[in-house]
Amino acid sequence: MSGLLAHTEYITITTKARYAILDITDRVEELREKAVLGDGFILVSTMHITSSIFVNDRESGLYQDIMAWLEDLAPRRTDYKHHLTGEDNADAHLKRMLLGHQVLVPVTTGALDLGPWERVHYGEFDGCRPKRILMKAIGVKA
Amino acid sequence: MSGLLAHTEYITITTKARYAILDITDRVEELREKAVLGDGFILVSTMHITSSIFVNDRESGLYQDIMAWLEDLAPRRTDYKHHLTGEDNADAHLKRMLLGHQVLVPVTTGALDLGPWERVHYGEFDGCRPKRILMKAIGVKA
Amino acid sequence: MSGLLAHTEYITITTKARYAILDITDRVEELREKAVLGDGFILVSTMHITSSIFVNDRESGLYQDIMAWLEDLAPRRTDYKHHLTGEDNADAHLKRMLLGHQVLVPVTTGALDLGPWERVHYGEFDGCRPKRILMKAIGVKA
Repeated sequence: MSGLLAHTEYITITTKARYAILDITDRVEELREKAVLGDGFILVSTMHITSSIFVNDRESGLYQDIMAWLEDLAPRRTDYKHHLTGEDNADAHLKRMLLGHQVLVPVTTGALDLGPWERVHYGEFDGCRPKRILMKAIGVKA
Repeated sequence: MSGLLAHTEYITITTKARYAILDITDRVEELREKAVLGDGFILVSTMHITSSIFVNDRESGLYQDIMAWLEDLAPRRTDYKHHLTGEDNADAHLKRMLLGHQVLVPVTTGALDLGPWERVHYGEFDGCRPKRILMKAIGVKA
Repeated sequence: MSGLLAHTEYITITTKARYAILDITDRVEELREKAVLGDGFILVSTMHITSSIFVNDRESGLYQDIMAWLEDLAPRRTDYKHHLTGEDNADAHLKRMLLGHQVLVPVTTGALDLGPWERVHYGEFDGCRPKRILMKAIGVKA
């Protein structure tokens, strides 16, 4: 048992397309190194309500499957009630809930403790503008 | 690095309707103040399996969109196998999984570290009776 | 306030069927006892991208409802782009996101702090081979 380390950083992502999936695992590892976290968690959480953080395979075909699936389950349409406010992104609010908005990345013996195919992804559903992601490390020093 | 603070409280919510969405962000902030949490997380987790905790916009049109969407993807029907036990709420068990049942709210420099539109919500899908939500603060004192 | 305990273990599950739901709550409690965790969290996170960890009722009828519902929303099909890699399990990658891949189990006064019907489950969507689950306890000693 030892004292608690808490270290927080924010990264900003601006995608070129309205819809996009990006592997951000290396950014999480950078934070771990900077925080010198040896054992604990890193919370990765999007600060916007039209994007996601999720863990899945880094594979471009799967990215296409995910986007087609999200469009099927939560289609971009004009007739959402939310659009009465002047917004046009209700589908993004729904899509983001299917994948989730945050992930806890475990850290053990000074390394991200992920399975061989686990990669942390950012899912954007209303892009082309800067979006912030919070990363907070909690645990004990390496 | 400093010692660990752990503080847990439970709140009870009884909705008037079977289906409801409530913004509970102020309740999370109350816990943070009471726990005097400076840096860390607050876990907000429903203790019932027919309700959700999720983060999204506080906007009544979107609430209607979310409920219509959940009903579309996980409709209230009579013919679920779970109903052979005498229950009638299988749809609530499914709806709650689409939105998730818990959220980690980051706390930094003595404040909830949320994006400008992020609000913590309780989603009820089998209401009209008391439901408990656990809130547990972990981290270091302010 | 006191020092931080961090304790990590891995369990391996090999299901007999391709699709399966298993209650693993007792395994989480075993970890809590071994870690002598008094207050904090246990992260339960599957290390594979074709399986889930989720909280719901331990009820066999509901398990059937969940599996039928997942098949309806994310069907097993041959024409996923992901299958161009030689894989045949794209549906598992999607199903696992509907239920989520990790859960934080709160621990208070030396016990799992779950509601009366909350049980931690492992959902397998591409089984018949060994899969690992990470369990990490963080908090203070009992």
